[in-house]
Amino acid sequence: MRGVITPELDLRFAAQLADAARPIALKHFRSGVAADAKPAAGFDPVTEADRGVEAAIRALIHDSHPEDGVLGEEQAERESRNGRLWTLDPIDGTRAFIAGLPTWMVLIALGEASGPVLSVVDQPFTGERFLGVHDTAAWLERDGERRLINSNPATTRLEDAIVSTTDPNLFSGAEAEAFNRIAGMAKVRRYGLDAYGYAALALGGIDLVIESGLKPWDVAALIPVVSGAGGVITDWRGQPCHGGGRVVAAGNRTLHAAALSILAGV
Amino acid sequence: MRGVITPELDLRFAAQLADAARPIALKHFRSGVAADAKPAAGFDPVTEADRGVEAAIRALIHDSHPEDGVLGEEQAERESRNGRLWTLDPIDGTRAFIAGLPTWMVLIALGEASGPVLSVVDQPFTGERFLGVHDTAAWLERDGERRLINSNPATTRLEDAIVSTTDPNLFSGAEAEAFNRIAGMAKVRRYGLDAYGYAALALGGIDLVIESGLKPWDVAALIPVVSGAGGVITDWRGQPCHGGGRVVAAGNRTLHAAALSILAGV
Repeated sequence: MRGVITPELDLRFAAQLADAARPIALKHFRSGVAADAKPAAGFDPVTEADRGVEAAIRALIHDSHPEDGVLGEEQAERESRNGRLWTLDPIDGTRAFIAGLPTWMVLIALGEASGPVLSVVDQPFTGERFLGVHDTAAWLERDGERRLINSNPATTRLEDAIVSTTDPNLFSGAEAEAFNRIAGMAKVRRYGLDAYGYAALALGGIDLVIESGLKPWDVAALIPVVSGAGGVITDWRGQPCHGGGRVVAAGNRTLHAAALSILAGV
Repeated sequence: MRGVITPELDLRFAAQLADAARPIALKHFRSGVAADAKPAAGFDPVTEADRGVEAAIRALIHDSHPEDGVLGEEQAERESRNGRLWTLDPIDGTRAFIAGLPTWMVLIALGEASGPVLSVVDQPFTGERFLGVHDTAAWLERDGERRLINSNPATTRLEDAIVSTTDPNLFSGAEAEAFNRIAGMAKVRRYGLDAYGYAALALGGIDLVIESGLKPWDVAALIPVVSGAGGVITDWRGQPCHGGGRVVAAGNRTLHAAALSILAGV
């Protein structure tokens, strides 16, 4: 099915999907800030945002591309009838969202049988929009300007790396041992970032992200952004990771290999 | 020396100090993003930002208020000759800064012998500016709009709390035990936020921040923002914390008391 995706055209459409998501997500973000606007008991702002964003994106896809498949966190999968598959996480980083932190993201990927081809990774509050075409290029768009971004080619040793994971307590026995070994060697550790950690890696700030237990919609949109920026993102054995599970992303091949030398044995 | 500070006037001046800091800090933030702009070996963007911001703020204070004292992270203390003391952390959250994350902050507090009276807690990249007058009011200013903010009065039990600390591995034996007991009970844990965790608490997103080993400039500016928003911020025994050390901040008195019941024994 190669060729069913037209990167330039489809990336523009993906950005329109992210545009539609922004006001819906922002309406619920920090919605309890003012004393007179505390949500009523039982009302869950992040659930409302999650459902609202996914419904809006699905409606736009259905209108323009009715044969495209959609795999999202909130609704049942719609099968592709043309080889094109959208993978959506309407609000990635729900804990950051409920804590009022600007590191949750809207994840939109378009792929085919071989995996994700392009994606938009959007932070509506900061206005940061990461765009990627797999193994080709990645951009950061903000305030109407778009510029190419690159992951960090200079940090090639685990000892010099800034390493991130969403929750160090989520790893099981052997996983925890491998992660802790790398985290213990690393220069700096950052936690709780979810997709934002991969975006920071694509920008060259974070060098290594190691996670486990991811769903396909947690990771699909990160692959074109990380690989487009020159980074490497695979599972812990160096294989494609768009199915989810254990994921390791690095700013360059050398650092990725150093991480795999510890992770691949798990 | 009560009365040496005029909150409205001095808060406006503190905001001017933060205005001066913004371009200096932003010039160095993510300065390695573009492939052709990677810093030369040995160049440390966060050190440059730290020094540049503190020097600029000190110069403005010296010009307008030559008798004011200044206590900052980067330069020697200048003693106050009029009872007014500025406490500055030019870049709080240096690890976030070097990792390219938008949660570092510029901290500016003005106080007298009894402690901080007013402050500005500024995030130049997101454009979020938190302002506080001790025990009186706190505001969030962004995109030219300023609105009152309130911490969360509804979360009164540790079991329902979103708790934050900068690094769970920084606590010593008995401290670690107390922190882990609370973190284990809490609904959600967030790490690595430094001052941004207290700002999120003042906004009602985070309920509880627990830290240890803070310097005076790490905490001084947080006190007017947290207390102005209706939260409580003290040391682990319920005493004033502007000297640094062990700090606990909560969105309301009931939750603060619940945390103290565990922390005060350490």
